[in-house]
Amino acid sequence: MAVILITGGARSGKSVRAEALARSFPDQPPIYIATAEALDVEMEARIAGHRARRGTGWIEREAPLDLVPALVASDGGGARLVDCLTLWLSNLMHAERDWEREVSELAAALPRLKSPVIFVTNEVGLGIVPDNALARSYRDAAGIMNQTIADVADKVEFVVAGLPMKLK
Amino acid sequence: MAVILITGGARSGKSVRAEALARSFPDQPPIYIATAEALDVEMEARIAGHRARRGTGWIEREAPLDLVPALVASDGGGARLVDCLTLWLSNLMHAERDWEREVSELAAALPRLKSPVIFVTNEVGLGIVPDNALARSYRDAAGIMNQTIADVADKVEFVVAGLPMKLK
Amino acid sequence: MAVILITGGARSGKSVRAEALARSFPDQPPIYIATAEALDVEMEARIAGHRARRGTGWIEREAPLDLVPALVASDGGGARLVDCLTLWLSNLMHAERDWEREVSELAAALPRLKSPVIFVTNEVGLGIVPDNALARSYRDAAGIMNQTIADVADKVEFVVAGLPMKLK
Repeated sequence: MAVILITGGARSGKSVRAEALARSFPDQPPIYIATAEALDVEMEARIAGHRARRGTGWIEREAPLDLVPALVASDGGGARLVDCLTLWLSNLMHAERDWEREVSELAAALPRLKSPVIFVTNEVGLGIVPDNALARSYRDAAGIMNQTIADVADKVEFVVAGLPMKLK
Repeated sequence: MAVILITGGARSGKSVRAEALARSFPDQPPIYIATAEALDVEMEARIAGHRARRGTGWIEREAPLDLVPALVASDGGGARLVDCLTLWLSNLMHAERDWEREVSELAAALPRLKSPVIFVTNEVGLGIVPDNALARSYRDAAGIMNQTIADVADKVEFVVAGLPMKLK
Repeated sequence: MAVILITGGARSGKSVRAEALARSFPDQPPIYIATAEALDVEMEARIAGHRARRGTGWIEREAPLDLVPALVASDGGGARLVDCLTLWLSNLMHAERDWEREVSELAAALPRLKSPVIFVTNEVGLGIVPDNALARSYRDAAGIMNQTIADVADKVEFVVAGLPMKLK
């Protein structure tokens, strides 16, 4: 079992890097677990772009909220690519779920899984403090989530301009 | 004497890292120099959270503005953890003090100190250019301050998702 | 020939680092290619500040839009410092030029140049997702441009607090 966390900014090449890592476990077809829902045109276009780039040979699953069940249900097969954790967090907060408990449960579940999991997440805390309190809560939550998952991950990379830096 | 600068984004694990470094100088109890003032409920909660996590055994000082005098007054004792420089800068600008002069004086004072100083600071310049001129001035000032202190520091780390990258 | 990309946040010390690299090719005087236009007082002050710091001995060129022609025209002489790519991108978008094609053409032109080129660019995707669609488009474009140029560069550095981290 391997847990890998790929973090970085928007359009930094995180997904491409994570896709390459998922394909590096070649025994069984990789499984793409999307946390995105195509709720508007901009998101639809982004999902379609990701799918076109990934190419064929992927099993596709959706888990906008129930990520641990999706990981458990797909365990024993190929490597899972979860794209992305920050969107999952945003979905949890929007649905008024207890994100701190859900993040803890995810961290606790990971060591029990047999097949590899590669997570994509975003760094959102390196700009000016946002004006509105909701955005501040979200960036605090994202930072805490990233620390929590990085702590249990076997490998963590920070991607800038398509190039990974090894953090762990 | 050692001067260490820990930089990174919001909720990236900078304070935890800096606390561990401060405790790594075990001869005398570490000194926590807070630049924060509990002016609102959100800040009060954050200060209380930091204090709970640090645990006992710290000497506590406050220096929202007069940081160099606080470092001089506490010199000769344990390692000082200054948390954080970006808030100090914000306080200086709000009080209409000459931040460029104060930052230069801080940089000049550091080599004369006997006990270690660990600074926590924030990277705030990696997002979209802010709309308002005040926010742009602040992020420019923070960048200049971080460069100035990094230049005189013996060791600089950039923390992402709780994991330090060595810059110097 | 060498292509070097220096990326980082606002006021992180990217330009100083890039200037030092440009001067490290000492055979001929370095050429400063500015993508900035002095359209307002804030920008004028910033341009004047950069010029004062660089000092004498630089040949100065301006290329707010037509960067490839400027690189071709100055080829065969000293090292070129292009400061900066994100402003060039912003100029292209503002002029409603096809930035994707222009970035591709730049990437394609670089391997054919004889004299070194050092690019400065900004990371703008590590904050909270911006509210307005234009800012989101810009940060997506900047991320794609940075990946594209990093891919063809011989050397890429990420500068934080004046200190470079080697990405490639």
